[in-house]
Amino acid sequence: MKFVKNDQAAVFALGGLGEIGKNTYGVQFQDEIILIDAGIKFPEDELLGIDYVIPDYTYLVQNQDKIKGLFITHGHEDHIGGIPYLLREINVPIYAGKLAIGLIRNKLDEHGLLRNAKLNTIQEDDIIKFRKTSVSFFLTTHSIPDAYGIVVKTPPGNIVHTGDFKFDFTPVGEPANLSKMAEIGNEGVLCLLSDSTNSEVPGFTMSEKVVGSNIKDIFSRVDGRVIFATFASNIYRLQQVVEAAVKNNRKIAVFGRSMESAINLGQELGYIQAPKNTFIDANQINRLPAQEVTILCTGSQGEPMAALSRIANGTHRQIQIIPGDTVVFSSSPIPGNTISVGRTINKLYRAGADVIHGKLSNIHTSGHGSQEEQKLMLRLIKPKHFMPIHGEYRMLKEHMKLAESCDVEPANSFIMDNGDVLALGKDTAIIAGKIPSGSIYVDGSGIGDIGNIVLRDRRILSEEGLVIVVVSINMKEFKISAGPDIISRGFVYMRESEDLINEAQKLVSNHLDKVMERKTSQWSEIKNEITDTIAPFLYEKTKRRPMVLPIIMEV
Amino acid sequence: MKFVKNDQAAVFALGGLGEIGKNTYGVQFQDEIILIDAGIKFPEDELLGIDYVIPDYTYLVQNQDKIKGLFITHGHEDHIGGIPYLLREINVPIYAGKLAIGLIRNKLDEHGLLRNAKLNTIQEDDIIKFRKTSVSFFLTTHSIPDAYGIVVKTPPGNIVHTGDFKFDFTPVGEPANLSKMAEIGNEGVLCLLSDSTNSEVPGFTMSEKVVGSNIKDIFSRVDGRVIFATFASNIYRLQQVVEAAVKNNRKIAVFGRSMESAINLGQELGYIQAPKNTFIDANQINRLPAQEVTILCTGSQGEPMAALSRIANGTHRQIQIIPGDTVVFSSSPIPGNTISVGRTINKLYRAGADVIHGKLSNIHTSGHGSQEEQKLMLRLIKPKHFMPIHGEYRMLKEHMKLAESCDVEPANSFIMDNGDVLALGKDTAIIAGKIPSGSIYVDGSGIGDIGNIVLRDRRILSEEGLVIVVVSINMKEFKISAGPDIISRGFVYMRESEDLINEAQKLVSNHLDKVMERKTSQWSEIKNEITDTIAPFLYEKTKRRPMVLPIIMEV
Repeated sequence: MKFVKNDQAAVFALGGLGEIGKNTYGVQFQDEIILIDAGIKFPEDELLGIDYVIPDYTYLVQNQDKIKGLFITHGHEDHIGGIPYLLREINVPIYAGKLAIGLIRNKLDEHGLLRNAKLNTIQEDDIIKFRKTSVSFFLTTHSIPDAYGIVVKTPPGNIVHTGDFKFDFTPVGEPANLSKMAEIGNEGVLCLLSDSTNSEVPGFTMSEKVVGSNIKDIFSRVDGRVIFATFASNIYRLQQVVEAAVKNNRKIAVFGRSMESAINLGQELGYIQAPKNTFIDANQINRLPAQEVTILCTGSQGEPMAALSRIANGTHRQIQIIPGDTVVFSSSPIPGNTISVGRTINKLYRAGADVIHGKLSNIHTSGHGSQEEQKLMLRLIKPKHFMPIHGEYRMLKEHMKLAESCDVEPANSFIMDNGDVLALGKDTAIIAGKIPSGSIYVDGSGIGDIGNIVLRDRRILSEEGLVIVVVSINMKEFKISAGPDIISRGFVYMRESEDLINEAQKLVSNHLDKVMERKTSQWSEIKNEITDTIAPFLYEKTKRRPMVLPIIMEV
Repeated sequence: MKFVKNDQAAVFALGGLGEIGKNTYGVQFQDEIILIDAGIKFPEDELLGIDYVIPDYTYLVQNQDKIKGLFITHGHEDHIGGIPYLLREINVPIYAGKLAIGLIRNKLDEHGLLRNAKLNTIQEDDIIKFRKTSVSFFLTTHSIPDAYGIVVKTPPGNIVHTGDFKFDFTPVGEPANLSKMAEIGNEGVLCLLSDSTNSEVPGFTMSEKVVGSNIKDIFSRVDGRVIFATFASNIYRLQQVVEAAVKNNRKIAVFGRSMESAINLGQELGYIQAPKNTFIDANQINRLPAQEVTILCTGSQGEPMAALSRIANGTHRQIQIIPGDTVVFSSSPIPGNTISVGRTINKLYRAGADVIHGKLSNIHTSGHGSQEEQKLMLRLIKPKHFMPIHGEYRMLKEHMKLAESCDVEPANSFIMDNGDVLALGKDTAIIAGKIPSGSIYVDGSGIGDIGNIVLRDRRILSEEGLVIVVVSINMKEFKISAGPDIISRGFVYMRESEDLINEAQKLVSNHLDKVMERKTSQWSEIKNEITDTIAPFLYEKTKRRPMVLPIIMEV
């Protein structure tokens, strides 16, 4: 980083700015880099067939000798999902809270990367010291236990990263450490990086305890089985389900791989506490009266393969909806999932279940603080400089306005893009330059082998389909020796469109005869002639523009 | 309809039950069919490349001699968009209010169907009499002028269809005719078909006048240009924009084809009233000070080709964002559009505009009544039987609960599917049978030629791409005369995957040599051998399952 001076600390992001997900931040002072989080992003619809999006790690690979550690704020996928991909390139030591370490361990095991991983469990009072920098922590509240904010001490000043947070004064689990945050603020903060997710939401996020009390109400009110769907990682919510079930003399059967694993890990680490025999096996469900059964499952986002979706579709091996069932969606659909959640609800109603869902039921709350909480963080930390993180541009912008209302001067706020480097001196701050950044697509086992051309092709194929024209040409005699044959996929149903295809074939055939007379041996010329003949014909007949793929075989 | 008795009236839907869109309803008594609305549905994401969805009109075609008329409740696409497709099959007379007739006329003109269309403009007091049935109307309020509820009188009793409605006591335009609804109720209603769109929304929908007052506030507060995006068909909203502009000494430039056409039609029919010189041409914008300019445009749903999206992308021929611009989204995104609207907002912020959007700004209101309005309709109409319409299953179900709370017995409520026929006698109601119904996909100029196979292919192609293996075989000598060649699209970037492709080619080539030794002339066998060789290899190497398309040329 030539553009950062020797007495300046550099702050940058490889993901998480101007977007939701793939959170990956760095603080660098001279030859020490502190990494914060390594997340993935779930692809938006137009990234057809892509499984995950990860950041471009080029800068980290090039500077791997400087990286002191990867510090994880909490165990959500958008903060830890990139770790296997990063570790394949550079094996940095990882520091995280107890639950996050458990989740990372499972993940690395699946990827066959656990053996060489350097995992360190941190606690709130730990201070990890390096030669010029040190890292300490403060407990926050989020929709997963063991969520920490991170303080990076550097010679020009302290840099604070909130992770994802809210202030729930009546949380499940330990409350956020307000007094430690106040101390950090009093010590002086050069720059605050703060979670912007809910900066467009006024007020204060509802307490998890309110959700718990509503869950208890439902469990006592409902006569039949309760089928409860929520995020597996929301261990607090799971604990509240356990409490509601126990109080109402219900047993719990767990469905869905991630839910089973969360219940196991949560119990192992002591976050989920249940009397013996609270959890039952699937085959015990039918031996109990309906009012003593809770089915706890995945699928609250309408994910097609999750347990609840299979129950709704009637394709679950063990659970069928029976009259009297009440399904609870303890979740709120992320924008891309609204339609599939809606469909699951429709199917459950059709199958005869009652369904409790939606904002008005107060059976879910966000893990992110709303505007008043973001202001509380600003007032506690009292930063000199401010950098809104975790969010689309509009959210960063809104968060910056909130900071201004809390006396951070607009000139001291920095809305950055991934790759931008903020150079912080004792009294100065400037976006000083840019490091490589971008999105790498993961599809199957391929990392970064899918680019814009493949995606463009997938888009055309998905909307208009494909027409293949294949022809064998004897290039010595300039004669067609077989074909042209026309094959299509995703364009029209071939059996019902024989006339269209026959007509197209004749057209191409006649035209190729003329082309052969020119005795050209330029394949590209012949291919263009085929495309230019058939594409306008097909458009005229169908008003569609399928991808045309001419294939010439030389025999 | 053999299953309906001679003294029973039949009510059915070909679209609009268990779904949003393609609203198409019918009331039949003996040999008289009254059709209500002929809408389209916009396809959901998984209908790749499909432009519209229309109902299966088979029953109407088979019974065209019985159809007395198509009665249109109002001019929205989900109520009139199917007319060109229906008219291509059967030329029924159409009855609609003034504005709807204007919109239908434009639509039929585009489709070259205007000349033979039988269009009749109705007014609220009209009664259209047939031999055994008659049709009358009552004015409702909706997000487009000239919205009517419809009463079909049949010998066993009166059947009321609300169309889309809300009760806005301070509307723009004429208020709904409450007293006529009360009279209809007092006369006795055998069955009410009522709009369920907002049955999950408690309370009362905000008045359009509140929206108007907030628009005026924005127009007076903002110093720069106002770029105002809304639905072109919401003529009331457009009138309120005109009023706000005039009051604040602003001129209006109109962008987007549907917006221009709405402004013209609205002025022509008297719904939009503006002083002379209120509207200006695009080239006049830059001659005026920013605070005297309003840009009224399409694109409030983030539609990629609409005016506002092009402005946000910086690709609009005439409008660039300049500092001081304020963009107003007077709309709420439908579920499928949330992400694209969000992106447009981000781009506008990045370009330097201020953006006003979202529920909290109170610059948009629904055209559909909430729960209290649905109850008001039920109390006014006092139906014996009830059939919730216009909505997904969950909304129909919720609406049925509301009806129960307003003293309609659950046994008298019918949640039906498209195609179900409700047979109504003087004292009886029963779902008596089913007529053909279903979804027909329109893609380009093709109506119904895209089926599940083509869509399945498009889905596979979109997610995994395609691998073509083409080989020329001399079938007399059982010898490969050219190839196998491998071509892919949407799978991997070929230039960077030469090794993979070469390896696959060798594999197939070697295997085909063995197959040739068997001297088989079964193409299908050879094709299967190719697929079974290459597909597992590609999956092993990439963890992807592209569509494999073996092509054999016989030379």
